[in-house]
Amino acid sequence: MTSSALQIALAYHRAWTGGDLDLAMGHIAGDVVLDAPAGRLAGIQAYREFLAPFAERFLVRTEMIAAFGDDDRALMMYDAETIPAKSAPAAECVTVRDGKIVYNRFVFDRTPFDEFRRRQAQAGAVQGR
Amino acid sequence: MTSSALQIALAYHRAWTGGDLDLAMGHIAGDVVLDAPAGRLAGIQAYREFLAPFAERFLVRTEMIAAFGDDDRALMMYDAETIPAKSAPAAECVTVRDGKIVYNRFVFDRTPFDEFRRRQAQAGAVQGR
Repeated sequence: MTSSALQIALAYHRAWTGGDLDLAMGHIAGDVVLDAPAGRLAGIQAYREFLAPFAERFLVRTEMIAAFGDDDRALMMYDAETIPAKSAPAAECVTVRDGKIVYNRFVFDRTPFDEFRRRQAQAGAVQGR
Repeated sequence: MTSSALQIALAYHRAWTGGDLDLAMGHIAGDVVLDAPAGRLAGIQAYREFLAPFAERFLVRTEMIAAFGDDDRALMMYDAETIPAKSAPAAECVTVRDGKIVYNRFVFDRTPFDEFRRRQAQAGAVQGR
């Protein structure tokens, strides 16, 4: 269950799900590539902007379901209690090089988050009348 | 990378992504519990009905991204080319007991599948005029 890739993945995960994006980004390579449900993002700034709403607005807490790794990759699945959904599990498969995450395939269901944003937009439109 | 749980998970995965639901269901316990994006399903018949549209209608091919396991659990992430989406990755974390999958936490993005069903319903409504 331990590997350098897994240790880095878990440190990154603890940091971002604890709301410390600066610490989390310390584990991410500058030229990281992220394949997220909405498409590919490149670079640490785009990565941070992707993660920020989850870390800072939506997340209540996470609970690790399983985490495995080998020399250069780690695969984690965790459940997340969020404002939009009581249970919003996600999986991340990260590749680590020279101690930094250079690639992440991030899988989760966008549905509850999209529905939440739609409801908020509708509420905003009603208030703005 | 090998474990009995992982071997069973991979055999199940090969079977269902190869379109052989009967073979896949041979690895599933009768009283399986499945936590899928839309909620919890219980029993092998509900499991099969959940999987059938993916296996029989939507799936073009899958490619394993990573698969790990220990004595009783396995965690897999794979990309799936589907009719609704060129890339529809998923992750499954299965618990194995007595050689059968008794629990699965199944994570994927429902968005492209829901959009596809909406488009099909609209096309059907137009044709039915």
